[in-house]
Amino acid sequence: MRIVDVIARKRDGHELSAAEIRAVVDADVPDYQVAAFLMAVVLQGMTDRETADLLEAMVDSGERIDLSSVGRPVADKHSTGGVGDKTTLVVAPLVAACGTPVAKLSGRGLGHTGGTLDKLESIPGFRVDLSIPELVSQVAEHGIAVAAQTADIVPADKRLYALRDVTATVHSIPLIATSIMSKKIAAGASQLVLDVKVGEGAFMEDLESATVLARAMMRLGDAAGLPTTCMLAPMDEPLGCAVGTALEVAEAVATLEGGGPADLTEHSLIAAGLMLGDRAPAEEALRTGRALHADREWIAAQGGDPDAGLPRAPDVTEVRADRAGTVERCGSRAIAEAAMHLGAGRARQEDPVDHAVGVVVHRKRGDRVEVGDVLASVHSRGRADEDAVRTAFVLTDENVEPEPVVFEVLSAAS
Amino acid sequence: MRIVDVIARKRDGHELSAAEIRAVVDADVPDYQVAAFLMAVVLQGMTDRETADLLEAMVDSGERIDLSSVGRPVADKHSTGGVGDKTTLVVAPLVAACGTPVAKLSGRGLGHTGGTLDKLESIPGFRVDLSIPELVSQVAEHGIAVAAQTADIVPADKRLYALRDVTATVHSIPLIATSIMSKKIAAGASQLVLDVKVGEGAFMEDLESATVLARAMMRLGDAAGLPTTCMLAPMDEPLGCAVGTALEVAEAVATLEGGGPADLTEHSLIAAGLMLGDRAPAEEALRTGRALHADREWIAAQGGDPDAGLPRAPDVTEVRADRAGTVERCGSRAIAEAAMHLGAGRARQEDPVDHAVGVVVHRKRGDRVEVGDVLASVHSRGRADEDAVRTAFVLTDENVEPEPVVFEVLSAAS
Repeated sequence: MRIVDVIARKRDGHELSAAEIRAVVDADVPDYQVAAFLMAVVLQGMTDRETADLLEAMVDSGERIDLSSVGRPVADKHSTGGVGDKTTLVVAPLVAACGTPVAKLSGRGLGHTGGTLDKLESIPGFRVDLSIPELVSQVAEHGIAVAAQTADIVPADKRLYALRDVTATVHSIPLIATSIMSKKIAAGASQLVLDVKVGEGAFMEDLESATVLARAMMRLGDAAGLPTTCMLAPMDEPLGCAVGTALEVAEAVATLEGGGPADLTEHSLIAAGLMLGDRAPAEEALRTGRALHADREWIAAQGGDPDAGLPRAPDVTEVRADRAGTVERCGSRAIAEAAMHLGAGRARQEDPVDHAVGVVVHRKRGDRVEVGDVLASVHSRGRADEDAVRTAFVLTDENVEPEPVVFEVLSAAS
Repeated sequence: MRIVDVIARKRDGHELSAAEIRAVVDADVPDYQVAAFLMAVVLQGMTDRETADLLEAMVDSGERIDLSSVGRPVADKHSTGGVGDKTTLVVAPLVAACGTPVAKLSGRGLGHTGGTLDKLESIPGFRVDLSIPELVSQVAEHGIAVAAQTADIVPADKRLYALRDVTATVHSIPLIATSIMSKKIAAGASQLVLDVKVGEGAFMEDLESATVLARAMMRLGDAAGLPTTCMLAPMDEPLGCAVGTALEVAEAVATLEGGGPADLTEHSLIAAGLMLGDRAPAEEALRTGRALHADREWIAAQGGDPDAGLPRAPDVTEVRADRAGTVERCGSRAIAEAAMHLGAGRARQEDPVDHAVGVVVHRKRGDRVEVGDVLASVHSRGRADEDAVRTAFVLTDENVEPEPVVFEVLSAAS
């Protein structure tokens, strides 16, 4: 089989065989052929059968974690990424406290704000570079492990993703779905909850395309033996209030202590309920402090000190409203860009993240504001750009309702 | 400007600016980005304006030959390539003998049969690696020069073509048209005749798509100051009888001597007539032997010996008809593949061409055949595969008309 013939068949809109798809994903195929193939996929699409075959070829490109020694079904949770999304830091302890172990591999954030690994690394001593045996035994012993994706897990995705990023071939449902699901399947959990974000701070900007992506991932998961449930959640505003790694860790702990933002608390309880099959135990674990205890056990198990102070920025500036009104929106993209300029995110893979800096928003959609009220606090090194944060807030004289915490939940039965 | 954004715009079907197109053609852009761009162009197309801008960017990537020192307008002729197409070897002397100088840069053949350069190299001593100053002074002095494309002429095309070949992005009117026309414009002639082949042995398999390609090239030529005329000619059968480098040179000489195949003679006179603006002088140059004289002068000018014998294969096998009938077709692809197996073509750029071997067909569409008549002669080293040649011939009991020599001529006015 010649790769150029496989590319030509996809270019002409034909359905490829499993063997053809596997041949293109092979590590020996040169980048320029893979790039042309990816563009053909973006423009001609893939059937469900082709997408499932691509998924299988990607998973088979590397190792698969065997979690059977944990002795119980292990849950995983994945978010398509959004601004202020620290859900994992809340949900993992909630679920583990109820007796369901959680294992998660995570990537580094590239873009406006740090990823889950960056957030965890703001905790003094916390190690994310667990080996696979370390990960498995930590899950068995302590009920939670969150570690960095290793090079052995779906190397085909690393390669495809790097190429997609520079060849304008990111936006394709089969490519996005297989990229996410291949890593989840290789990570070895028995069930998955996907948190698909919708809105300006997210990958999918409208509910319709987010639903298409969610259903594609559910079909892949179910076919590959990883039962998958999806939440579709808004991302026009940050989730919770804090944006910036240590600020987000602090907010997650506050949420486990019962004093977190209402939207983050509710979002986390919904996710935990889906992972547990019932929300009541998660509510109880939160109320009784068992979830907070599980969080401290997890941090310690991964080398972190749960009692050490988190990094703090030297300067905190309050951004105040210059008019009265009701918040129509606190734009997640503008907040993320302001945080990025402070150093909370990274523009290039090799950039460091400043754990101390970030933005905490105090008002969100539907909140009433008077002139001089504090809209947000900026945690910075040196003088903060107040205007960059203030422009994130759109005020109106109309009444507006807050956004729902979750638009919809899709499960295999739905 | 980020290349990934330019690719995304073409992916989404937008019209690119001249600056965007120029940026993608830049030599510093990595292959994988160019490959993704090419696939987006194949699937989304290019407007005439974009195609003209691509042409200009490609021409500007290298040197342009200045033929003004020749002192007269210089003609060029290009064929999109076909089986047994030795037209250049006949037309160049015909035209030069009438006082119009001919300058042509040519590529090596990749595929079933050798290219024009390979054919010329079958003449003992013939040099195709002329420097640009050598080419210009030979045209001025002897009226003809045909040389190998140098690395300085449209380097962007070399790079794009190599990528297109391995990424299934060859079949695109804007990409084919700019590839051909950029080299013709850089080669510096004042007028161009394009011989666009149609049929199974050609790039374009039907008259409609060949016409679209021809008109695209004419628009590019006219806009860039290179007035261009197109012949649309059939390629379901070989042109003339000989297929194989030295066999084709011998047939071209025989044609200039007045004893060539009728279709090749007519085809060459039509082409020469278009280059001269009038067919009568070409007919006279053929009849009087002035064209043959011009051919001998050309060969000698380029280091060849017009009196030296051409390479000859040790074995000649006659392929005879196993039934009676009328030839419906002598398939050019099957003949080309048989010639290729004999060693007359090359599968890879670095393969040598065997100048001695090839196939000479003696019957073509419309010819009556009895059992035992010779259909073709195979010139080989060792035993020939007669069946491979015999299957090229389709015999019928119906009456069939020969194909026209040329389907249509398109000129700027038409």
